[in-house]
Amino acid sequence: MKLYDYKAAPSPRRVRIFMAEKGIEVETVQVDLMTGEHLKPEFHVRNPRRVVPVLELDDGTCIDEGVAICRYFEAIQPEPPLMGTDPKNQALVESWVRHADFDGFLAVADALRNSSPAFSTRALPGADEPIPAIPALAERGQASITRYFNRLEQRLAQVPFLAGDTFSLADISALCVVDFAKWVKRNVPEAHSHTLRWYEQVSSRPSAAA
Amino acid sequence: MKLYDYKAAPSPRRVRIFMAEKGIEVETVQVDLMTGEHLKPEFHVRNPRRVVPVLELDDGTCIDEGVAICRYFEAIQPEPPLMGTDPKNQALVESWVRHADFDGFLAVADALRNSSPAFSTRALPGADEPIPAIPALAERGQASITRYFNRLEQRLAQVPFLAGDTFSLADISALCVVDFAKWVKRNVPEAHSHTLRWYEQVSSRPSAAA
Repeated sequence: MKLYDYKAAPSPRRVRIFMAEKGIEVETVQVDLMTGEHLKPEFHVRNPRRVVPVLELDDGTCIDEGVAICRYFEAIQPEPPLMGTDPKNQALVESWVRHADFDGFLAVADALRNSSPAFSTRALPGADEPIPAIPALAERGQASITRYFNRLEQRLAQVPFLAGDTFSLADISALCVVDFAKWVKRNVPEAHSHTLRWYEQVSSRPSAAA
Repeated sequence: MKLYDYKAAPSPRRVRIFMAEKGIEVETVQVDLMTGEHLKPEFHVRNPRRVVPVLELDDGTCIDEGVAICRYFEAIQPEPPLMGTDPKNQALVESWVRHADFDGFLAVADALRNSSPAFSTRALPGADEPIPAIPALAERGQASITRYFNRLEQRLAQVPFLAGDTFSLADISALCVVDFAKWVKRNVPEAHSHTLRWYEQVSSRPSAAA
């Protein structure tokens, strides 16, 4: 089993934290996104979408999408459970993971990739043709980040962790979004005391350094 | 248990098909998106993101996000399995569900909501403030639909169903995307014989009418 990873990127970080929480170690291959290694044919055959992370199983099957890789690890090593402890909790983890992805991750990616010169023709990750930036989408992304931060605060005023009483992939996902948002100069507002309490707690777990 | 649904919308359709495949029936409440019922306070308390579907459990917990609702049903009624049969298959279902969402659903939504006069200030679903359309994003969405269709064809040339040998939520998700794409005048290209074979098969299941 091999994990195709890139240490500086936010998407594979979610998987690395998940693995650290479970104590899972696998061989890791760094795919240097800065020099375009993800666009080369040898990576393309492993993931036609040309993004990391990818988990290659011993039978050659390649699993892309970080949450799908987490799902695999959750199934082969259920303890500690990070994707839900009962049907309701499983559903809430899934829901809050998707909030992180659709409302958080994509918003930050839109804000970053449509404003930074480094991505001027690579506004979508992994695309096999030039995708020009859309400056208005960077603005929309910034506004979506505000809404996402507001939702986090509303939720974390009610419960200790996003899916309820226990730490889960939902928290790992949101932690990665909050840190990714710093790339576009956004921090959790100082008035968001519940989110800041949660952030302090989840980012001080040893796994956060993974 | 109550499902907040809107018969004409693509997102709740995925849940309805999933339920039909499992033979699950619950009380359903139609939330009329055309008259803005999803923006009213009584729906807002159930889902601050103001989109359908939402599943309200008997204890009052509201689960939003269609895939999270499916996850709940999969846990309380595992047969027939629609979210994977073993760890590898579970991961592949998760991966292909996410392809449908990120590469398919969002692409069609971008193409639709940034081009249709009906959405001129509602370019993101459920937003609590006007979100103006970005015409260039409609174009980007159309190009992303092309890439998604190409990926479906590549995959379905290799396997009968998206996650492998058995029908799953991955197929239900992609079916909903393919039908949603018709809203922006996109059909699976005639040359995509593998996708058309698959589409004929999945859309002729009785559940597709749900």
